[in-house]
Amino acid sequence: MDPIATIDGYIGEHLDASLQELAALCRIPSVHTRPEALRQAAAWVADALRRRGFAVQVFTFADAAPVVYAERQGRSPRTLLFYNHYDVQPPDPLDAWHSPPFELTRRGGKAYARGASDDKGHLLSRLLAIDALLHALGEVPVTVKFVVEGDEEGGGSAGLHRMVVQHPHLLQADGVIWEFGGVDAHDTPLQFLGTRGLAYVALEVQTLPHDMHSGIAGSLVPNAAWRLVWALNSLKGPDGRVQVEGFYDRVAPPSPRDVALLDALPDLPDGSFAELALAMGLDPAGPVPLEVKRRAVFEPTANIAGLTAGYQGPGKKTVLPARARALLDFRLVPWQEPAEIPRLLRAHFDAHGFGDVQVVDLGGVPPMKMDPDHPFVDLVVAAAREVYARPMRKVPLRGVTGPGHLFVHRLGLPVATSGLGYPGSNLHAPNENLREDLYALAARHATRIALRLAAG
Amino acid sequence: MDPIATIDGYIGEHLDASLQELAALCRIPSVHTRPEALRQAAAWVADALRRRGFAVQVFTFADAAPVVYAERQGRSPRTLLFYNHYDVQPPDPLDAWHSPPFELTRRGGKAYARGASDDKGHLLSRLLAIDALLHALGEVPVTVKFVVEGDEEGGGSAGLHRMVVQHPHLLQADGVIWEFGGVDAHDTPLQFLGTRGLAYVALEVQTLPHDMHSGIAGSLVPNAAWRLVWALNSLKGPDGRVQVEGFYDRVAPPSPRDVALLDALPDLPDGSFAELALAMGLDPAGPVPLEVKRRAVFEPTANIAGLTAGYQGPGKKTVLPARARALLDFRLVPWQEPAEIPRLLRAHFDAHGFGDVQVVDLGGVPPMKMDPDHPFVDLVVAAAREVYARPMRKVPLRGVTGPGHLFVHRLGLPVATSGLGYPGSNLHAPNENLREDLYALAARHATRIALRLAAG
Repeated sequence: MDPIATIDGYIGEHLDASLQELAALCRIPSVHTRPEALRQAAAWVADALRRRGFAVQVFTFADAAPVVYAERQGRSPRTLLFYNHYDVQPPDPLDAWHSPPFELTRRGGKAYARGASDDKGHLLSRLLAIDALLHALGEVPVTVKFVVEGDEEGGGSAGLHRMVVQHPHLLQADGVIWEFGGVDAHDTPLQFLGTRGLAYVALEVQTLPHDMHSGIAGSLVPNAAWRLVWALNSLKGPDGRVQVEGFYDRVAPPSPRDVALLDALPDLPDGSFAELALAMGLDPAGPVPLEVKRRAVFEPTANIAGLTAGYQGPGKKTVLPARARALLDFRLVPWQEPAEIPRLLRAHFDAHGFGDVQVVDLGGVPPMKMDPDHPFVDLVVAAAREVYARPMRKVPLRGVTGPGHLFVHRLGLPVATSGLGYPGSNLHAPNENLREDLYALAARHATRIALRLAAG
Repeated sequence: MDPIATIDGYIGEHLDASLQELAALCRIPSVHTRPEALRQAAAWVADALRRRGFAVQVFTFADAAPVVYAERQGRSPRTLLFYNHYDVQPPDPLDAWHSPPFELTRRGGKAYARGASDDKGHLLSRLLAIDALLHALGEVPVTVKFVVEGDEEGGGSAGLHRMVVQHPHLLQADGVIWEFGGVDAHDTPLQFLGTRGLAYVALEVQTLPHDMHSGIAGSLVPNAAWRLVWALNSLKGPDGRVQVEGFYDRVAPPSPRDVALLDALPDLPDGSFAELALAMGLDPAGPVPLEVKRRAVFEPTANIAGLTAGYQGPGKKTVLPARARALLDFRLVPWQEPAEIPRLLRAHFDAHGFGDVQVVDLGGVPPMKMDPDHPFVDLVVAAAREVYARPMRKVPLRGVTGPGHLFVHRLGLPVATSGLGYPGSNLHAPNENLREDLYALAARHATRIALRLAAG
């Protein structure tokens, strides 16, 4: 029998069993804030890989959740690495769920649970692909590695960072399949080729030892809230342009190829046009202007994520705040450097009379960008053509941030995406779910990627 | 025997008994948020005045604590009105008190309790003065009225407002003695001749139905926190000048007489130079520049009392805030009108492209200013010379706000201050206290005011 038919037959016949296995993993409430559940989930993942003939190592760290590393030698000398994570977002608000968040519940062709998509569902669809390959071929066609961490949702991928620093040789591969992937609102599969970076800072002002009564001090001593407002205003005015000297120096404009890929997208790169159109004054049913698509991802941002000063309760209080604080996230585009942003802010404030504004560096993530036409990307795109009804569409850059730069820019490995996400997945929200048809397609896509890599 | 000697002898002999009576009133925890305790305190005050031969009426209102109104006919046709209040601030933080806050505790020439100074101590020192006058003269020398409300601390003097609107005839008098008065750090008695007004507003911006992920929406949709920052910046820049068109139109500069009075003050008008000097970059032991004294009270302010937007917890969250809110208090000088401020703000925002900023009027208080040389003021100042070691010093305006405008500008009555406050009173703070020597002096001062008014 044709191995492809055997593979696809196996996936179809074992979908229920695979979802039952997923239900067992979802039952472990491995919220990123619960260390014991994280350890249980890591042990569960290690067992699941051992059962499939993988050599498994569980790496533990003082300051990161365990990382499960697994490897199974394949027929060809080439190597495929799957990166996934077993931690999940908290399920709150609980009362918004239609079924218990840690009990995978199937209804209407979907399966609902925290982690059903992000990222336990993705991991289990990869395991279903491995099972199908082993069933059809008796072995995996390429060497397959898994690296599965537990710090993706809340810990800045601390586990993956440790692996990259301490065990980079284990992560060597001919290609990396990223934790997630998926289709757009029209079921067109998407190939995500990059993420923006992030610099996160707190701006803190303290003008007095403690708050004062505004009636006495109001005319005389500096108010921390006003200082913060003026400092923030100096960063960015209503035109949206960031006024920090040097901020745009390392910004690479999109290449003509990037622009062409953007132009071909029917939606914003993050698929959010329907959600954002009204707030932009655009028709949600209308076309998405290329300029809007470009701005959505190829321009860096300075976003106020939080403001805090003085009295915030009901009613009124006449206080002169001694302290004020803003949280800001800067989305960075290639090739801005996150560590540079707090230094540029410090210089900006010093130059504009805001020496009293403290800049606290809360960490950052570099941008990641793949060559849109890298052979491994094209292999994954071609493999998708075998299983999806529509050709995969390349998205040159997303607005969000991720740890993909560790593989692409630290280890120099090509990364591509494949997965079962869709616009109704409700990631990080109540009623997170997967579509069973997309789950099977993602498993099939994974088998085709392995087969093509073996043949290539 | 000389009636003056009899009066002063009585006050000296009955100081302990008067403080015991004060202890009974302090035992009632009439925090402005506790209606039952407020009713008890009102009943206690009514009884205390009835025992002294006053005709007492207790006015109750649907939306205000009871007001105790009392009147006793005197020998002369002239009338002296005492305004006081029986409500107190909450005692928090409790663990900072050295003795129970509702148990008047005497130590080292002071008596500690919530309300010991503000305002139960003031009220009881007036009653001691009445007792001394009745003992010496067999009657009060002038008709004496009391109006004692329970909404001063938290309710915007709602009780006094009701009385002014519904029973203005009862409040007619030749002079009003304000709820508090006192001495400065050198025991110089002060005559407070005015208070600033207040306009309190919330500025609210909503740009989206709900918060969004900053990575997706950050480049495209308006951030409420940025809108608020820019709107606030348009109100006032680092030079401190309020940029709202028309804001200064009704501001009366201090008269030459006001400036001369300011110049004679060794401290800021609110006695806060030692507390504020360092924050102003001045030597706390040095002279207080006249310009600083002028700015402290004769300039209106725009104070940010609170700022709220987006994420305010620990760590970091990449959210694009849909809503942002600022609380602002504007201290107003004669003759700015509080109701006009929200209208000026609305016009300002509309003219500067901030139509999306909502201005919520949270209420206001007009400024109050007495003629510094009004005969009643001079009577009170002259009466002080009989009992205090130093001449009373006139303070033309204070930085804080109060309901004195109701008497001065609504009813057209002269108001003067007399009392037992001193810089260590700890008003609104733990370990509120009175100095027993000042308590006796305040009682003696009140008797002299009544005697001079009878003779005048």
